[in-house]
Formats: sequence, C-alpha cells, structure tokens
Amino acid sequence: MDIKQVCIKASEASIRMAELDGTAKNKALSALADALLEHKDRLIAANAVDLKRSEEEKLAAPLLKRLKFDEKKINDVVEGIRSLMKLEEPVGNTLLSTMLDEGLELYKVTCPIGVIGIIFESRPDALVQISTLCLKSGNSVLLKGGREAVETNRALTEIIDGATIAAGLPKGWITLLESRDDVNEMLKMDEYIDLVIPRGSNEFVRYIMDNSRIPVMGHADGICHVYVDKDADLDMAVKITVDSKTQYVAVCNAAETLLVHEAAAAKFLPVLKAELDKKNVEIYGDEGTRKIIPVKAASDSDWATEYLDYTISIKLVPDADKAIEHINTYGSGHTDSIVTSNRQTALKFMNLVDSGNVFWNASTRFSDGFKYGFGAEVGISTSKLHARGPVGLDGLLSYKYMLVGNGQTVDDYANDRKSFKHVKLNKKIQDV
Amino acid sequence: MDIKQVCIKASEASIRMAELDGTAKNKALSALADALLEHKDRLIAANAVDLKRSEEEKLAAPLLKRLKFDEKKINDVVEGIRSLMKLEEPVGNTLLSTMLDEGLELYKVTCPIGVIGIIFESRPDALVQISTLCLKSGNSVLLKGGREAVETNRALTEIIDGATIAAGLPKGWITLLESRDDVNEMLKMDEYIDLVIPRGSNEFVRYIMDNSRIPVMGHADGICHVYVDKDADLDMAVKITVDSKTQYVAVCNAAETLLVHEAAAAKFLPVLKAELDKKNVEIYGDEGTRKIIPVKAASDSDWATEYLDYTISIKLVPDADKAIEHINTYGSGHTDSIVTSNRQTALKFMNLVDSGNVFWNASTRFSDGFKYGFGAEVGISTSKLHARGPVGLDGLLSYKYMLVGNGQTVDDYANDRKSFKHVKLNKKIQDV
Repeated sequence: MDIKQVCIKASEASIRMAELDGTAKNKALSALADALLEHKDRLIAANAVDLKRSEEEKLAAPLLKRLKFDEKKINDVVEGIRSLMKLEEPVGNTLLSTMLDEGLELYKVTCPIGVIGIIFESRPDALVQISTLCLKSGNSVLLKGGREAVETNRALTEIIDGATIAAGLPKGWITLLESRDDVNEMLKMDEYIDLVIPRGSNEFVRYIMDNSRIPVMGHADGICHVYVDKDADLDMAVKITVDSKTQYVAVCNAAETLLVHEAAAAKFLPVLKAELDKKNVEIYGDEGTRKIIPVKAASDSDWATEYLDYTISIKLVPDADKAIEHINTYGSGHTDSIVTSNRQTALKFMNLVDSGNVFWNASTRFSDGFKYGFGAEVGISTSKLHARGPVGLDGLLSYKYMLVGNGQTVDDYANDRKSFKHVKLNKKIQDV
Repeated sequence: MDIKQVCIKASEASIRMAELDGTAKNKALSALADALLEHKDRLIAANAVDLKRSEEEKLAAPLLKRLKFDEKKINDVVEGIRSLMKLEEPVGNTLLSTMLDEGLELYKVTCPIGVIGIIFESRPDALVQISTLCLKSGNSVLLKGGREAVETNRALTEIIDGATIAAGLPKGWITLLESRDDVNEMLKMDEYIDLVIPRGSNEFVRYIMDNSRIPVMGHADGICHVYVDKDADLDMAVKITVDSKTQYVAVCNAAETLLVHEAAAAKFLPVLKAELDKKNVEIYGDEGTRKIIPVKAASDSDWATEYLDYTISIKLVPDADKAIEHINTYGSGHTDSIVTSNRQTALKFMNLVDSGNVFWNASTRFSDGFKYGFGAEVGISTSKLHARGPVGLDGLLSYKYMLVGNGQTVDDYANDRKSFKHVKLNKKIQDV
C-alpha cells in the first residue's frame, strides 16, 4: 500500500466529507450500526483468531480481556453509535456573526479539520468509537490498531467502509494501516494529514511528537495530585485520596502524589495510612511525613514519577501556595484536586494550578469524556492549544471565517470613502 | 542573559498573571499608556538612533517608514491600548457548565496559555500591540524584534516593564531578547514556552516550525485566489479582482491567482486586462486565457507562487468544482473569494474551499483582525488547529475544566451506587 496515495485519497475525501449535512452523516452512522449487527458472527470469528494467536503468544490476561470483541461489546458500540447520532450536528454552526458594514457580513463557522491519523491500542471497540467520531465531525481518518487485533480491525474496517460508502460517503474516508512502517510513513505526510492522535504508552506518544511535523493531540504523562488543605474535612480527604489512588491504578488520571498541609498532617496521615494499608499501597514520604507515619523515604525523583501502580508519594507543604508551586513544577498538567472547605483557597487552587482538569473536593478519577457527559471521547489532551482535557467531538473541529459582501473593496475603506461599523449580529450562515 | 532563567521567570510570572482580574490588568494597561506618553521624548530619541543607523546602512525606504516611531505613532498605540482596555475581560469566562450529578458540577473556563514567544519584524508599534494583547489575556511574553529597531524596542520594553510592574504585575512577565542566538535558545525551551508566534518572512516562519518542538502559530504562505463564476456580475468581478491584486501587493492576503469560469472569460478578461494594465500588472495566463487576451504563458509553477508584486496568474476552469479543486491543491489555506450571484454556488465554494477565510463577493484584502473588528491582531494563522484566520485575543487563551464536588468518588459510580445525570447548567464558576 502506497501511503502517499492513501493520504491523497483521504484528503480528497475529506473535502466531500465537509460537504455532508447531518442527515447524510446520520444515515451513514445508522447503516454502519446495522451492518455491525448483521455481521456479528463474522466479527466474532475474526476476533477468535486474534484471541487464539494472542493466547498462544501469552498475551497478559488484562490485555486479552481488552482484545475480546464479543456480542456484548458489539451491542455496546452499536448503542454508542445510536447516542452519537442523537448529538447535535457539529459542523456548520455559526459561532459569531458581525456586520462589518452595510451589506458586508462576517461569519465564523465550524468545519471539520480534514484528515486525522489515529494510532490506538488493542481494544477493537476503540476503532469503532474513533471512526464514528471522525464521521460525525466530517473528517477522513487513517487508523492504525494494535498488531494483536489485526483480524478484528480488518473485519471492522471492511464492514464500516462497505456500509458507509453504500450510504453515500466518499471512497477513501477511512483506511486501516497495518504495519509499523506504514505509521512511520504516515508521520511524514504533514502535507495531507492535519492531526495525529496517538493513544498508547508515554514513550510511544513522545516518539510520535518527536518524529512528525504534524500536530499531535495527546498526553505524555499523568502525574496527578491530591492536595489536602488545612481546611479539609479529613474524612472526605481520606475518601478522595483512596479513590484517586486506588480506584484504577493503571490509568492516567490516578493520583501519584499527595500533598498535605502541615497543619492537617498529624491527624490526617495516620487515618489515611490505615486505609491505604488495606489496599496494600506502598507509600514514599518526605521527612515531615515520616515524622508522623512510618513509611519509606521519598527521593526527588518520586515527585516526577508516574507509578501507575499501588504506590503513592506524600509531601507536606506549609500552605496552598507551596502546593500549587509543587504541582506546577512536577505535575504533567493533567488532573489535580484540592480538598478544602475554604472557597477562596479552592478558587485560587483551580485558577493557579496549570492543568487541564482542576478539581475541588472530588476524586482525580473523574477526568474523562464519558464522565463529563461528552458522549464520546477522542482522548485526553495535556496540551494547552486547540483542545485541552478530555476531548469530545469539539476537538475534531476547526472553524473558518466566511465573509459575504456585494462587491466591497478594501480601497474604499483605506481611502475613507467607507468606514467599518462592526455591529454584532445574531445570524446564521444558513440564513444568508 | 541566560535564556533558561528568563524562561523560568516568565513561567513563574505567568502563574501570577493568570490570577489577575480585569481591573488589575486594565490598571496596568492604563499605567502603561500614561508612561508611553510621559516618555514620548525618550522614545523618539531612541528611535532617531535606530533611524540614523538604518539610513546609513541604506535600509529600503518602506522599511524606514515602518521603523519610524514618531508622536503620531505613539498616540496611535496609546489609543490602541485604550480600546483594548474596553474589551471584555477574556479570562475566567465559563464556556460550559454541567451538573454531572447532584453536588458535582463541571465548568469549562477560559484561562491564559502561559508563556508566549513572539518574533516580529521592524515595526516598534508591533511590540506594544503584542505585549498589551499578552497582558490583557494574562500571558507572559518573550519578545524578539528586528535588529534595526533595537534602541526603540529597548526603550519601549523598559517603559512597559517599569510601568506595569509598578502597577502590580509580576516581575518577568515581559522580556526583550536581543540576539539571534537568544532566539535559537528560546526555540529549545519547550518545557517553559507554550506557543511561538513568528511574524516575518515565509522562510523565517518555516525555519521556526522546523527547529522547535514548541507549537507555532503563524502562516507560511499567502497564495490567495479570486474565482469569477459564470453567474458573476462582471463589473463587480473586475472591481474585486483589481482590489484583491493591487490594493496592497506586498501583503499575504493579496490575490495571486485568478480563476475564471470558461463561460464568463470572453466578456470578462478583456475588460479586466484593461484595468490591470492601468496598474502595470504583469499577467501570466493558461492556454484558454491566452486565446482571449494577449498575455505571457503561465507554467505550472505559477499556480504555486506567491508573487507579492504587481503580477497575477490566470486560469480558466469549466465549473466551480474545478475552481475549488485548484484552490485546495495550490492554495495556502489563507483567503479565497468567489464572485457570483448564485447563492448555492457561493455556499458550496465557502464550504468546500479549505481555507481560513472564504469570501463571497468581497475582496481578499478584507481578511485582517482589525477589519474583522477583533480590536487587535496577534497574527494570521493558516493552521487548522487552535486558532485559524486572523487571531485576536481568543488565540492567546486556553481553557481548563474545573470540577466542584463535595467528596464524590468514582468508585460509587463504577459500582452503580450512584449514576451520572449530565444536566446542562447556565452557571458561572464565579457563582460556586
């Protein structure tokens, strides 16, 4: 497969995708959902081949579980598609309208980005979620899934491609890439691909960022913090810390470091330790912490470590400012939570902590597109440009300025024969 | 000057900048405006040194004109600052509020990006515009101006720094870099700098993009098109083409290529040529064009050339679709205009041309932040991510998600003891 040709086709298709209205896109989504149900047996059979091979290759049990694509998962993704169909049409929305002068109207209108390259891990359901999000937002998509899911992904892509093109989508809007080499070729195609979204390990995301001129949306690390303030309700602080650390340790929004106000530490830490001990959490503490509870000594590198495990580091701080400073120094801009009953301290924390998700009296584990009610999630971004935090359909959109006149020239304004009025309108581009 | 130390200070200052409310920022802007007026003589004297040196170095007349910073220009920038003060406070605006569950509320709130690096050309007024835009949006800024304006820029930065820090802004929020080496060092500081905005030649912008991991907002080329449809009013088409090409040839939103529907060419081209001849515009035409008017032959490279001069290339097309295809192939995604009285063709053109600014019956020269009424312009972006088209204050903002709870844990939701409600609110973060 010649990747450049694939990219050119995807780019040409993206122009046609931009033209589709909500009805046409929902028709394609509906056909796609029906086709997945219709070809259920084929999908399960393809997945069985992947599962058998992966078992023989001794893939770890949690990964095998993620790889499995059974009737329940097929029903789940179909249900996901039906919810996606109910979301408002994201393209062609007028975000702003201004009368620059009589008969000269400016509109800022949402539009697709163009061609999105997505590299994802083993879950075949991710392929369906991502490609349907791209469809709904009018983008072409190049997909690269994990090697272990190759048969399932191939069957899925064939079914999606067949059903959506029969429903009127342009050929080339979706393509599955199958080899690592294809990915490396893809990263060079900055002329055709507008955005790459890698979903995988930290090293992999960094590799992508360092090896492509294409903008990358993704997050490299998830070093999340809980800060227990002097004005915290200590029972609440224990609950939130335990949930943030242990509810699911292998994910990016799990807490890695706990910061505790010196004035709260003596009461709080022993109670917390008893709870963390029940979950076998290994604790590394700074000097102040170790004066109160018997734990291992934390080194400086602990503050910059994403354990992704039943491990936590604890540091005492003299005030909220020092907590904020620590987070802005060592954090990864992902998710950080303060526990306090002091509104002013909470607002200060949320304003000054430079992270995509800043929480007051809630577990860090809440930062997630589904929990936020976005209906679907493309990924989580720790960049501060374009999209930040959990990214839904919005992250797959751009906008353009449309100017509607009746023959205006700049010369008239440059020579004061006419002047700009700049009156805010409340008009949609569809009404011109 | 150690650039890393400068960046660390700018980064620390950016946290304090994020904390300032609109009143504090306007107070600093007001002090800055007063200080510029107060130190008028010092500025004019510094500028005289730059002008004398540049004259001796035989700087071209248009560049000398841009370099000049006299009483009128000082008054203009001060007036600009007063208008900026009147704009709504951009930081802390709630873009979205959702009740995830009783007592668990999500807010999407605008915030500064952090540290912006700006590299600009010779105009000293650009320094004031850019730094005040960064101030209003709560960002720290590293500035690098042209060598020829070094004395003026140094005096300006000292006055801005002095006045704003006396008015309560954090030290280090603004720094002027003076050497090329400093810029190269700055481009390596992706840990501290969030965004680079280069304003200069194409080669320079590309150089920055290729030599930094920091996201770049800018445009590389301005290959803009006018397409004259078969349903065009031909008088209007002549006016718009002449204005788009000749009103100011050295700028990025001047037209470089004219596309003409075959059915309109015979009537339109001779009239247009007569008008372009009056302005001494050199014309390169494709075969079809040259059957109608006597002009030089265009080669394929003409379609990809930004002349920035009194030169235009002309090509005939059989329909609007081919015009759109040509623009999406050779254009630079900047500004493209259709002249037609057919609404359907115009909407199709605006939807399918993949450019930041798509116009109907108006000169390409209108794409500009001031003309759009943004009050001020950071630059023009041809990227489709983050900010596109003329970029005002909005392009200097990010957002964060603030979640306000009362002790919620994800475990309760994962185990169905609680469930998400996702009710849209109309609440501001300031009201929690």
